[in-house]
Amino acid sequence: MNFRNRNFVSLHDFSKEEIEHVFKTADSIHEKKDICAGKILATLFYEPSTRTRLSFESAMHRLGGNVIGFTDIATTSVKKGETIADTGRSVECYSDIIVLRHPDDGAAKIMADYTKVPIINGGDGSHQHPTQTLLDMYTIRQELGKLKGLKIGICGDLKYGRTAHSLAEGLSLYNNEFIFASPEELKLPDYAKRKLDEKNIKYEEKRELKDTLDVDVLYMTRIQKERFHDPIEYERVKNNTILTKELGQKTNALIMHPLPRVNEIAYEIDEKQNAAYFRQMKYGVTVRMALISLLLGVVE
Amino acid sequence: MNFRNRNFVSLHDFSKEEIEHVFKTADSIHEKKDICAGKILATLFYEPSTRTRLSFESAMHRLGGNVIGFTDIATTSVKKGETIADTGRSVECYSDIIVLRHPDDGAAKIMADYTKVPIINGGDGSHQHPTQTLLDMYTIRQELGKLKGLKIGICGDLKYGRTAHSLAEGLSLYNNEFIFASPEELKLPDYAKRKLDEKNIKYEEKRELKDTLDVDVLYMTRIQKERFHDPIEYERVKNNTILTKELGQKTNALIMHPLPRVNEIAYEIDEKQNAAYFRQMKYGVTVRMALISLLLGVVE
Amino acid sequence: MNFRNRNFVSLHDFSKEEIEHVFKTADSIHEKKDICAGKILATLFYEPSTRTRLSFESAMHRLGGNVIGFTDIATTSVKKGETIADTGRSVECYSDIIVLRHPDDGAAKIMADYTKVPIINGGDGSHQHPTQTLLDMYTIRQELGKLKGLKIGICGDLKYGRTAHSLAEGLSLYNNEFIFASPEELKLPDYAKRKLDEKNIKYEEKRELKDTLDVDVLYMTRIQKERFHDPIEYERVKNNTILTKELGQKTNALIMHPLPRVNEIAYEIDEKQNAAYFRQMKYGVTVRMALISLLLGVVE
Repeated sequence: MNFRNRNFVSLHDFSKEEIEHVFKTADSIHEKKDICAGKILATLFYEPSTRTRLSFESAMHRLGGNVIGFTDIATTSVKKGETIADTGRSVECYSDIIVLRHPDDGAAKIMADYTKVPIINGGDGSHQHPTQTLLDMYTIRQELGKLKGLKIGICGDLKYGRTAHSLAEGLSLYNNEFIFASPEELKLPDYAKRKLDEKNIKYEEKRELKDTLDVDVLYMTRIQKERFHDPIEYERVKNNTILTKELGQKTNALIMHPLPRVNEIAYEIDEKQNAAYFRQMKYGVTVRMALISLLLGVVE
Repeated sequence: MNFRNRNFVSLHDFSKEEIEHVFKTADSIHEKKDICAGKILATLFYEPSTRTRLSFESAMHRLGGNVIGFTDIATTSVKKGETIADTGRSVECYSDIIVLRHPDDGAAKIMADYTKVPIINGGDGSHQHPTQTLLDMYTIRQELGKLKGLKIGICGDLKYGRTAHSLAEGLSLYNNEFIFASPEELKLPDYAKRKLDEKNIKYEEKRELKDTLDVDVLYMTRIQKERFHDPIEYERVKNNTILTKELGQKTNALIMHPLPRVNEIAYEIDEKQNAAYFRQMKYGVTVRMALISLLLGVVE
Repeated sequence: MNFRNRNFVSLHDFSKEEIEHVFKTADSIHEKKDICAGKILATLFYEPSTRTRLSFESAMHRLGGNVIGFTDIATTSVKKGETIADTGRSVECYSDIIVLRHPDDGAAKIMADYTKVPIINGGDGSHQHPTQTLLDMYTIRQELGKLKGLKIGICGDLKYGRTAHSLAEGLSLYNNEFIFASPEELKLPDYAKRKLDEKNIKYEEKRELKDTLDVDVLYMTRIQKERFHDPIEYERVKNNTILTKELGQKTNALIMHPLPRVNEIAYEIDEKQNAAYFRQMKYGVTVRMALISLLLGVVE
């Protein structure tokens, strides 16, 4: 298995075996000190995503490497009319690996096509955010000891939610079942269901979170008011997908959330042992350390 | 004395003995190379304060550590509605110690309550900026060889000036006398005077800087026009608290200023040996190096 | 030759011999690992220039040093009314060397006059950007093996283009000939021509790029529509200074560009061996590594 100098633009860039190799690498990556000493990570954030950026920067520093980058297109050459290809070809002169966050679908693929250093997609529009999926899967693996034979509840905005789609796809590599809970207006799109059908993945659809509590993993996501055509409909259903203190007491599922949350999970739940969303952040650093190390070729 | 994993939200978090231990640690901290290697400082600046940020980042780098952070809430999850508690619990997954600068009083306390890593208050609204007070005290200690038995002049905005209040409080731990010089409208508030009275601290109040020159330390601060209800009053008194070239020649006091200055101190004074305000910046890095090291537990 | 603690505000700060010493130092600088360990570079960018900033930050990290700084005056003390002299005297308390980018002509000189640490001018208004000239010259030296006896074509905005003027001046230290290609409205100003005349430098002036292809080096720069008084004139001539795919096939010159480009060079040309503009970026890091090391005195 060779990861050196490859890109990670989409989850599909890695086979199931390769994903598992990333996880195995992650298991011992904290023991490998300074393996990225002298290397430079560039974080190019064309839109804000503080959490993703800090996670990657933390990962690189934990590996002994350095970080350069920008967080705001207002301070970049982009406003002078430069293409993403040219930006990539310039920044690879300054760095050894690039994380790109961009509002446009496909931006990471374009940069990857034009550069020689590895490109990691840190989220491109509604398209992909593959390291989020990796860290979600790694969290389940670490917390439950396995990635298969699980019943996974995914709750919230399943229509526009990149995270939810991507997680369902990642976990479909294994023999898992799903329950999807969302308001009618934000239910899982037909194309996503067809993908599951093609793989013979079992799933149910629910409208309320209270019918989704008997699962191994409960993955919560945020619902935005603006997603609704009808504000009255939003008011009617908005509380149906909130994990209240009361609902929290009724589930032993591993509770996850990509964060930031607004009100999807009651604060009282934070202290429960099965509330995994902050540990999820920590696993994110670990997985990204493994990924950076593999793509740089400093581990095999 | 144990500093490991404690917070520094307010000057009161440390006893007089502990403050002195920070200073003793500072005395030799530059000899300790790389004691924070592998550690990460997060600088979370919800409002700009370049000087404070650069000082902390310099301190961490001098210790061999790394820095991540943000400088602008426009690029953070805050605008998505995240609480300061959640931000803290996320960022502690990425870092070993956090400096928080926030416009709201009490923000640092909230973050400290919810996180396990040490929180240093880098200024929260009008409330506290305790490392500024530490560095002010350390400057006096280094420049005059002692912290007690001194006559301290504090000049400028004594009503709203967080720095002035805090310094008076810090120096009240020792046997010092004060002269406060400010326009009537910006004089020291009654509650601050009561605090001094309770400790039997001697002080005088003056309206003009020219009556405050016979001191050991002259601490200058900025007066903002917007603080005055009456612009005519501002015009009338604005020059009374400026250290002109002429007044500068009449004092041998150690001249200090938290910087940035606008016109409070004439540029001709900069080259005088007793002008300590730029050295004060340097002491700031030293004190912050000591503080970070103590809270991380890499020195005792 | 002693570079330690000197400033690099203008190309004239270095003699021809000293410039050559920078280049010789650059030749082997990548072999010298960690020579700036423990040192801090401050990048103070009062206006955006991502490329210049990332290049300097990359250079410092490649040398094992650290970086602090700001990229936006909105987040600095400047808006509180601080002078550039005070900013410099403060930042030198936090760092060992400063790169300043500023919109005002002469800003770097002012900061250099007031600080003890070396100041590198990273571009001050229309005045100077001397490290750009150094890297342009180093690129020619590396790619063509020499800096003299060459025919240099410089194309684009020769009236306002700081880069073009500066390069002509740098290459005038050697025995080179020039062809300048620009629209009538943006031709080389008389004062620049007088400088060349004084040194007995041969040059020709052309209006179109197609008459400038028979050169050793073809240095392309961007033309901005706003520079023209008459938009109709802009439309008439705008294509005359574009290196199209067809024109690219007619020249064997080393093609350079300070980047970012908009449409001055056709993308098909990028893959040609003589297209040097991305390699130019890489040489920029190398030259800046040498410069930083020399001014810090860690190499001689």
